[in-house]
Amino acid sequence: MGIISHRYASRLLVRSLIVNALKRSASTTAFHSTVPIDPIPSANGSQSLAAHYFPTEPDIPRLLTSFPGPRSVEKLKSLDKVYDTKAAYMLCDYQNSVGNYICDADQNLYLDVYAQIASIALGYNNPVLIAAAQSPEMIDALVNRPALGNFPSTLWEPILRDGILSAAPKGLDKVWTSMSGSDANECAYKAAFMYHRSKQRGNVSDFSYLERQTAMENKSPGSPDLAILSFEKAFHGRLFGSLSTTRSSPIHKIDIPAFNWPKAPFPALKYPLDQYETENRAEEDKCLTALETILQEWKSRISAVVVEPIQAEGGDNHATPYFFQQLRKLTKQHSVLLIVDEVQTGVAATGTFWAHEQWNLDAPPDMVTFSKKFQAAGYFYGNDELRPSLPFRQFNTWCGDPSKAIIAREIVKEVRAHNLVARTSQVGKYLYEQLEQLQRTFPHLMQNLRGKDRGTFIAWDATDLQTRNKILKDMKGAGVNIGGCGAYSVRLRPGMTFLLLIW
Amino acid sequence: MGIISHRYASRLLVRSLIVNALKRSASTTAFHSTVPIDPIPSANGSQSLAAHYFPTEPDIPRLLTSFPGPRSVEKLKSLDKVYDTKAAYMLCDYQNSVGNYICDADQNLYLDVYAQIASIALGYNNPVLIAAAQSPEMIDALVNRPALGNFPSTLWEPILRDGILSAAPKGLDKVWTSMSGSDANECAYKAAFMYHRSKQRGNVSDFSYLERQTAMENKSPGSPDLAILSFEKAFHGRLFGSLSTTRSSPIHKIDIPAFNWPKAPFPALKYPLDQYETENRAEEDKCLTALETILQEWKSRISAVVVEPIQAEGGDNHATPYFFQQLRKLTKQHSVLLIVDEVQTGVAATGTFWAHEQWNLDAPPDMVTFSKKFQAAGYFYGNDELRPSLPFRQFNTWCGDPSKAIIAREIVKEVRAHNLVARTSQVGKYLYEQLEQLQRTFPHLMQNLRGKDRGTFIAWDATDLQTRNKILKDMKGAGVNIGGCGAYSVRLRPGMTFLLLIW
Repeated sequence: MGIISHRYASRLLVRSLIVNALKRSASTTAFHSTVPIDPIPSANGSQSLAAHYFPTEPDIPRLLTSFPGPRSVEKLKSLDKVYDTKAAYMLCDYQNSVGNYICDADQNLYLDVYAQIASIALGYNNPVLIAAAQSPEMIDALVNRPALGNFPSTLWEPILRDGILSAAPKGLDKVWTSMSGSDANECAYKAAFMYHRSKQRGNVSDFSYLERQTAMENKSPGSPDLAILSFEKAFHGRLFGSLSTTRSSPIHKIDIPAFNWPKAPFPALKYPLDQYETENRAEEDKCLTALETILQEWKSRISAVVVEPIQAEGGDNHATPYFFQQLRKLTKQHSVLLIVDEVQTGVAATGTFWAHEQWNLDAPPDMVTFSKKFQAAGYFYGNDELRPSLPFRQFNTWCGDPSKAIIAREIVKEVRAHNLVARTSQVGKYLYEQLEQLQRTFPHLMQNLRGKDRGTFIAWDATDLQTRNKILKDMKGAGVNIGGCGAYSVRLRPGMTFLLLIW
Repeated sequence: MGIISHRYASRLLVRSLIVNALKRSASTTAFHSTVPIDPIPSANGSQSLAAHYFPTEPDIPRLLTSFPGPRSVEKLKSLDKVYDTKAAYMLCDYQNSVGNYICDADQNLYLDVYAQIASIALGYNNPVLIAAAQSPEMIDALVNRPALGNFPSTLWEPILRDGILSAAPKGLDKVWTSMSGSDANECAYKAAFMYHRSKQRGNVSDFSYLERQTAMENKSPGSPDLAILSFEKAFHGRLFGSLSTTRSSPIHKIDIPAFNWPKAPFPALKYPLDQYETENRAEEDKCLTALETILQEWKSRISAVVVEPIQAEGGDNHATPYFFQQLRKLTKQHSVLLIVDEVQTGVAATGTFWAHEQWNLDAPPDMVTFSKKFQAAGYFYGNDELRPSLPFRQFNTWCGDPSKAIIAREIVKEVRAHNLVARTSQVGKYLYEQLEQLQRTFPHLMQNLRGKDRGTFIAWDATDLQTRNKILKDMKGAGVNIGGCGAYSVRLRPGMTFLLLIW
């Protein structure tokens, strides 16, 4: 597989993403075309929102230098003297980024379908968020940052109710806020452990002398030998507790001490899912059986199971609603809490506001964590018993950040105002179809396309790590900022404004 | 000890803090005076900055209702339906707070010497921070929040250099940013573990098959059986790794699984320190010997020692520069890193910008963590070898938050412009003297006054928990928002603008 064919294939991907989707003619210096342009789907009466949000958004990427550009390279070298830039792809000029286009230090403009690792919801310099950033509320939140647990603001309840809580999943009408996805998961784990022990001691809120004493020694029963069960290839963050449930890649975990917590196999499904229903059901049943065995073996030492609706960092691994329905049943049977980690799948990415809405569960998850595209982080819950019975147990100095919750509120409002969930779902369908065609043309570069009917949460496999990394780099060189995941997958993770490009 | 005498004593404390310190006459309805007013120290030629920052700051607290006020109570009840308010003291109106005064939902204004658990640096609604909050840079940072590890901004280096890094401790000229004090400590711990293992395998950046495989199983050697040593009564945060080093109180730890990491005794000194030099030296030597024994017993399994310059949450426990000098020597001897947790002591609180500057160490700490008053969080380091050799090892989605780093930069600039370190030192001396007098008058309410020559980082003991909590509540009822720490201590943790009240 030589350089030329990769480059060519990458440009075809760019065409599908940009040229086709943007109704551009195929002939530009940046995007030399050799394949026909597919027709653009009709807008079904929808008005384009591009003019509304981003009147100055360009039509196509603007490539002034090679990738990475010389100023990026030079300035990253300078930054590296004081701040580790080993993982930096490029230095960015956000003030000159616009909508779906990210600008680098060399003034190259890339179509951004990675969106700060899936965490830019409404494009760069969205005017609605700029207005929110300039509001008196925001200034207050920034200069008078409260310790929310001790001294919440009079504005906190309306900010939550009009924002984060107005998007709460069914059955989970309360929220605890935190600082990041990792932190959100760890707070949820702590709530699960305290709930578990509270049930064991019969809801008594007084602790024994032995419990108090041993907790101070990091020993059982005060520091109990309990566990969170996660799945193979899961990613739940990189703090010590969340990292113990992360199983995505050695590079995330190596050299860091971890809790001896159990992991269950996650289904390795065949794609496209609808062509392998029988095999996939068998695979899911096998994993559920293995999970049940672990739950039995660990007896009452597992406080919660944590699961992503689609394992993102681990390679965009899907499971069907059936799997999650059975998972909910099993966790109920074994009196184990179910935590759904929607840090990456949440906020409309998959075609519903929360991905787990697509499972049609009999009973909701016990907690749902969020962060990334919401900017604010935390977990939803419904059961009051998940609140520790005493103050200062689920606690820290800031307990979240109102400035982020204000951003989250504006995002929810825009999602609602412009029907962005349904639109993301539709643009996802279109994208998926386009990529299916490309997969047929380039089976050596694109395999296991997945994410059908999951909004823009789409990925495919390259054949190996080297090829994948080459594609990612070529795509940048061709003007598209795109990300990888898993062993050798490519993932699309655009913001919700990506749909504007074809509407 | 009846209600009346507590109330009376609390009001006398209020007098010392407010009436004396504010040059107020003793006769107001809120603060009935029965003791003489001490003279105010001269301003040594300094101009008052109060007019500069807070022209509308009131002269005294404004108490319109009892504490907590009826609107606070009512609205907290409403908030509690969706957000746990068990630890909430009152609901606050930050838009009507000003300078050193915090406003509640009932429009009571309290002198705030707790400052959002020691994290408001320059008072409420400081105009300098309001200007920063309105800057184009801030708007950019809020609406285009970058994944700093992958896509740092062109503005990131100047924001760091003009801000956080310009206040870097001697010898530590690099920074890694994070989201909170807990997170900062955990990132420092991770850096320590990776450094430790890198030394063990001879700086080879390739991992063995066994290491990769076992890391995915949360087992040694991939997930090594290494430890961070902390001290009894330490507080380093509440995430799973940081909580394993926290030893302040069972309420912080109980029911949460913890790593089996070692703890060493922290000196229990007698106050005032200068009256017990011999006993205190013996106590510190005893603790150092115990520490050395642990370092020997654990052989090469301890990657770092983490220590607070003054144990804050654990009860404002001091140690002398001698102790820390010996600690630095011991950690060097045993090839163990020294992490100084300046989350609460940092940013001028103790009369130097960083508390550990007062130790006159031969070699700097390996890492110094910060958060709280800086709003931005992270750790400083000097040695490039503390950077993992491969990307994506010290990593997460956001790796900090430029919006907070902008606030930190403005704080550093103000500290420099107005000489706030020296002024905090001076106001601390004055406060300490005043409190010494009070301690003589009320030995049954104030014992072990401590924090001499440590800026405004001052605390004392009540006789027991019940008395302490009564004092805290009475103080609020009398118009002063003040905090507790340890088993039954009262702590002063005002912002740097507190000094304006007496200048």
